[in-house]
Amino acid sequence: MSGKFIVVEGLEGAGKSSVIALVESIVRRQGYETTTTREPGGTPMAEAIRHCVKQTWQETVAEETELLLMYAARAQLLTNVIKPALAEGKWVIGDRHDLSSQAYQGGGRGISQTTLNALRDITLKGFAPDLTLYLDVEPAVGLERARGRGELDRIELAGLDFFIRTRERYQALAAADESVVTIDAMQNMDTVHQSVVDTLERYFSC
Amino acid sequence: MSGKFIVVEGLEGAGKSSVIALVESIVRRQGYETTTTREPGGTPMAEAIRHCVKQTWQETVAEETELLLMYAARAQLLTNVIKPALAEGKWVIGDRHDLSSQAYQGGGRGISQTTLNALRDITLKGFAPDLTLYLDVEPAVGLERARGRGELDRIELAGLDFFIRTRERYQALAAADESVVTIDAMQNMDTVHQSVVDTLERYFSC
Repeated sequence: MSGKFIVVEGLEGAGKSSVIALVESIVRRQGYETTTTREPGGTPMAEAIRHCVKQTWQETVAEETELLLMYAARAQLLTNVIKPALAEGKWVIGDRHDLSSQAYQGGGRGISQTTLNALRDITLKGFAPDLTLYLDVEPAVGLERARGRGELDRIELAGLDFFIRTRERYQALAAADESVVTIDAMQNMDTVHQSVVDTLERYFSC
Repeated sequence: MSGKFIVVEGLEGAGKSSVIALVESIVRRQGYETTTTREPGGTPMAEAIRHCVKQTWQETVAEETELLLMYAARAQLLTNVIKPALAEGKWVIGDRHDLSSQAYQGGGRGISQTTLNALRDITLKGFAPDLTLYLDVEPAVGLERARGRGELDRIELAGLDFFIRTRERYQALAAADESVVTIDAMQNMDTVHQSVVDTLERYFSC
């Protein structure tokens, strides 16, 4: 039996890492093997692409370049990690997936929906997560948390407006897609984790 | 006045390098400044992408990954080199451009025309070379010449069938586009160069 693909999404500082660890432990307790992935990245080649897109360059990084690199890394991860793991019956827990491109490059950078849909079709060919947990956080609060962890990368150095637009797109897409569950990540961590536990219990009971 | 974009295309071993040097000297003799580019590559970030797509990996390189990386590098070169140079009135001489993706990824790898058109629209938004010189060579002959120069990269290590399909696509696209001039690169180098000189003389006299 094929595994399931659960994705955790949200802005910097939303608390993705601890939620991913929690999801992993819950899924394992149900008796499934798990594989965790991160995007962009997750294979040697995709990590090289991640390094390329995240680092600061002395040249302008064209919006299309950033976008195409994100999808190149996604194609590589999908082919070599996500699909093989699901086919073996493993559950894949993803730190970001396509919704990040829709929110960051679509909402944040203003790339058109037509372009995003074309790249999604080329790369994913209808493949989509079974469940997405979107951790909703105010950009200023999330960025403050992320800053506490150390240096921010090229994309994280974009202005606050960029993250406000990204969050708005996240919220709109989450509202429109019933496979995406929004969790209020402004709450304290215990409450956030309880919401995740409740969401997964509902998911497993279906 | 804006400059012109002249591209030299062809299989490995078609003789692109010496033709590019010749085109450059002819254009300069006409009094124009020139910039030469190569694809994929041509900016520090695009060269990093080139390295990523050309090297041999221990994992499967998905066809979509290769394709998206080619267009990511193209977007970067277009934004930071080709368009600014043309705007300054320079003539840009390109070692490969979009026709390579159409021939190698379309003909060689079998990527659909719909996908290629979508990526071309996203990346180039209607931008196209003013003139393309396609150096037509038999794959076996071109590869033998290229082998004489040393190690072949990941893409050049594809089988002969791949290059036969790539050449057929090159020939079909060249026949259908009046901005592409086909030059028989099976001839000796002096004859090839004379054909290039003749083609550019006709171009300048228009």
